[in-house]
Amino acid sequence: MSEKISGIAASAGIAIAKAFILENPELTIEKKQVEDTASEINRFSAAVEKAKGELQIIKENALRDLGEDKAAIFAAHLLVLEDPELIDAVKTKIESENVNAESAMDEISSMFITMFEQMDNEYMKERAADIRDVSKRVLAHLLGVQFSSPASISEEVIIIAEDLTPSDTAQLNRQFVLGFATDIGGRTSHSAIMSRSMEIPAVVGTKVVTEKIQNGTILVIDGLDGEVIVNPTEEELALYRKKQDQYKEQKAEWAKLVNEQTTTADDQHIELAANIGTPQDVQGVLENGAEGVGLYRTEFLYMGRDQLPTEEEQFKAYKEVLEKMEGKPVVIRTLDIGGDKELPYLDLPKEMNPFLGFRAIRLCLEQQDIFRTQLRALLRASAHGNLKIMFPMIATLVEFREAKKVLLEEKEKLTKENIDVSETIELGIMVEIPSTAVLSDRFAKEVDFFSIGTNDLIQYTMAADRMNERVSYLYQPYNPAILRLIQMVINAAHKEGKWVGMCGEMAGDPIAIPILLGLGLDEFSMSATSVLPARSQLSKLSKSEAARHVDTILNMDTAEEVVKFVNENF
Amino acid sequence: MSEKISGIAASAGIAIAKAFILENPELTIEKKQVEDTASEINRFSAAVEKAKGELQIIKENALRDLGEDKAAIFAAHLLVLEDPELIDAVKTKIESENVNAESAMDEISSMFITMFEQMDNEYMKERAADIRDVSKRVLAHLLGVQFSSPASISEEVIIIAEDLTPSDTAQLNRQFVLGFATDIGGRTSHSAIMSRSMEIPAVVGTKVVTEKIQNGTILVIDGLDGEVIVNPTEEELALYRKKQDQYKEQKAEWAKLVNEQTTTADDQHIELAANIGTPQDVQGVLENGAEGVGLYRTEFLYMGRDQLPTEEEQFKAYKEVLEKMEGKPVVIRTLDIGGDKELPYLDLPKEMNPFLGFRAIRLCLEQQDIFRTQLRALLRASAHGNLKIMFPMIATLVEFREAKKVLLEEKEKLTKENIDVSETIELGIMVEIPSTAVLSDRFAKEVDFFSIGTNDLIQYTMAADRMNERVSYLYQPYNPAILRLIQMVINAAHKEGKWVGMCGEMAGDPIAIPILLGLGLDEFSMSATSVLPARSQLSKLSKSEAARHVDTILNMDTAEEVVKFVNENF
Repeated sequence: MSEKISGIAASAGIAIAKAFILENPELTIEKKQVEDTASEINRFSAAVEKAKGELQIIKENALRDLGEDKAAIFAAHLLVLEDPELIDAVKTKIESENVNAESAMDEISSMFITMFEQMDNEYMKERAADIRDVSKRVLAHLLGVQFSSPASISEEVIIIAEDLTPSDTAQLNRQFVLGFATDIGGRTSHSAIMSRSMEIPAVVGTKVVTEKIQNGTILVIDGLDGEVIVNPTEEELALYRKKQDQYKEQKAEWAKLVNEQTTTADDQHIELAANIGTPQDVQGVLENGAEGVGLYRTEFLYMGRDQLPTEEEQFKAYKEVLEKMEGKPVVIRTLDIGGDKELPYLDLPKEMNPFLGFRAIRLCLEQQDIFRTQLRALLRASAHGNLKIMFPMIATLVEFREAKKVLLEEKEKLTKENIDVSETIELGIMVEIPSTAVLSDRFAKEVDFFSIGTNDLIQYTMAADRMNERVSYLYQPYNPAILRLIQMVINAAHKEGKWVGMCGEMAGDPIAIPILLGLGLDEFSMSATSVLPARSQLSKLSKSEAARHVDTILNMDTAEEVVKFVNENF
Repeated sequence: MSEKISGIAASAGIAIAKAFILENPELTIEKKQVEDTASEINRFSAAVEKAKGELQIIKENALRDLGEDKAAIFAAHLLVLEDPELIDAVKTKIESENVNAESAMDEISSMFITMFEQMDNEYMKERAADIRDVSKRVLAHLLGVQFSSPASISEEVIIIAEDLTPSDTAQLNRQFVLGFATDIGGRTSHSAIMSRSMEIPAVVGTKVVTEKIQNGTILVIDGLDGEVIVNPTEEELALYRKKQDQYKEQKAEWAKLVNEQTTTADDQHIELAANIGTPQDVQGVLENGAEGVGLYRTEFLYMGRDQLPTEEEQFKAYKEVLEKMEGKPVVIRTLDIGGDKELPYLDLPKEMNPFLGFRAIRLCLEQQDIFRTQLRALLRASAHGNLKIMFPMIATLVEFREAKKVLLEEKEKLTKENIDVSETIELGIMVEIPSTAVLSDRFAKEVDFFSIGTNDLIQYTMAADRMNERVSYLYQPYNPAILRLIQMVINAAHKEGKWVGMCGEMAGDPIAIPILLGLGLDEFSMSATSVLPARSQLSKLSKSEAARHVDTILNMDTAEEVVKFVNENF
């Protein structure tokens, strides 16, 4: 008998294979008193060295197969094992409390994990997860237990797990891992975003897959409709193989659009761009036919290392992206760090509500040395392509004016040093704070463009942390309040002859696309893998018809009504 | 030579007296190995018992002199000392690690404090502060050190401190403490709110008072202009005595308005109400001539205890308030707990961003037993006065409809039980989430009234935690974006013939009052002590003239411009 488990469709596609249950290794830690603390410390050091050796190899493999940003995870893991705060604390504990290495490592790392836990977020270098991963690896060596990891998989499987950690996802081998399903998570959780970027079909938030599925059971993952079929019947297998073929055909159709412009059914041009995190990601942007980079998140340059990147390092990265994009527009966002996105070497204070805290432009305006170094690197790179600069988390015009002033000061300095700087750099802001959306008519007089960051805009407008499972039902992109704010921003910009992009998850969402088209959004920036499906969808939509529905949609009461209307009318 | 230190005017009035530096007792803790752990545990238990004895006496004094809500702080402290999680952990540590009681207590309580610290907030029963206070008290007994507290002051002084904890403020004796000044804090920090409700002149956020002021130095606290004068000259003393007299005269003028209606210069009636936390607070409401209770925060009923209040306990409290108000309107807000406002007995999960978390109506709709008990108590009390019920943290119409459905179900049950319920209860919502302000035209068709909660509305709209010093500059009540949202809500309500109140700090703010009057706000609800100054201010303002300035103000760029305009034009 087959069984159907429903979840959230996180990444499109159909996968059929047997289940591989990804479990945490069984690490039973007994606390023991030891006499010879010196030899216990040696045991501990040996385990740390073994873990380092392993990580070095994994890191090199990741660099070769997956690119620099994935490899950075393991660089961060290595940094944890070189962090004297952690390592010395374990040694001190062994010595002063006469306890065994396992219990000392476990207690100290638990303490650090608790401390860092509230900082978990969509980013890979998330510190609590790093420490947890690394600590397990060291403990496995101390206990002589095999440390299984997704990297060790060597046959075609579908991974079943409670959740996938950032390091799990980075170790997935696309050759063998055909899909995955998890108990927890939502469409915007880290593992969901990763699955889309790796094009692995995935269903998340099923609540029960680990409980209901045994190792080796045959499964179908339907990432189109968010379903997991356990022990499919022959008929079901045939059905899903057909669905898989249809999806492949559709992908082939999409692939034909790579070199096309994005044009609606009524002949309106729409700009489709992609979001990137590192220069390596540009390849995917070009392969998927994006017309520009709508958001280059520069945080990765600052992460997984033990000091700030130099002006030269940054310049090289920005120049590489600009050159590879060959004159197509590249919007680079200045540093959005702080709050939940922590950089150990900046020594930022722990905050009660990091999403409402000291981050992004707030931090950059106070620690101007960091900001000025980045701005100089950006200005120098501007001579090598079509650069647009964008400030994140702008809440007031005072902040924008101050940031702009700093930029102009650095520009003047460079000009005096006879360094080439483009004279046509557009300067914009992220609209991700409600106050800025509400006051967008005033901002529109001073900025060159807006880019709506829906991920944050939604969570502030609804006052709901989208990482918090208990309130994630309030993360409502289709809530009429959100759509009205988007309309305000677009209308305000167009009145001043400025353009508006969107770089949140919403821009690539098939339900949102017809609404955003109707609202007049100029640029849609999304995961590279969503570009072709979006181009295909837009080619079938009429902008003027979509615009006619806008008033109806904006006067609805609830997100549910909006979704129903879109499904019925587009 | 006198010196002037500037800070934030937290509570109006002038105080002149000598400085009393409120310092934490010097608690130097040495970690020692002990042989006889049993006698060490006895030492610890004896110190805990002594601390309990003291707290019992302080609690009884507080109950007698300050009322139930202040006494509840010490009830909470007593609960800490009865909490086996904490007490047993200390004993276990002494026993298993052979350490002295002081170091065990210090380490365990530090661990708990770190865990709870992110939950600090405006409420008194804040758990980390409780544990810190209690832990100091126990450690003082263990170390044989005198534990000084504001309760021990017996001559006229001005308190100088880095900050005042909730328990410090509750122990202030108004007979002896004439004023206070602190290094940290802002207008909406706990100590500032308390100082206004106790009518003690206060200046907060001076950054340097503890560094610059010695014990016994003569000081002037100017709570009107936010200044501290250290070692005032004879001329300065004369000047401030005059200012003090003028302020007293002004207060006497205000006092004459107690039985007056609130009427503007152009004869428009405005409703001035007060915010309360407990039935005891009604006395202050009546003494200050408020025309109703605009916000009764019911959280206090749930705090400082070890289980939920019964329906009967709640019914008594609500009935008491309604009866004392003798038919004047009383808006009671249903439970706004969860997230940062923790109730130990509910066992809520720790959250990364409690302000964006599982709280208020979100929690009540999931844990409906708690919600239904409160609604039944409210419905039963409705027969005894002019009750209006209000739901907090409403973000979507779906939530409102669901909450209303639960209310109607309970009402029907009561009717079937032949229990008297008023047929004219108005049902409203707090507008404190941006989505609800933006969609207020849709909400206005379904609710009877709105009450704008500016404290939260501002922090979500600006994406800045007002408790976080590093971003508190973004807590901008006068930002045109905030004013536009308020306008949206008022216009939407009036279009449907509904009324709008405001129950955040902003409603009693002299800079905001002319703007809110111009925007057409119907009801202003504030600290009881702000009612008469506000009535006096409103009597001198013309509503139609204020309304003429609205367009100008709403088209400004920054909060700074708005403040300048108000100061120049009203």
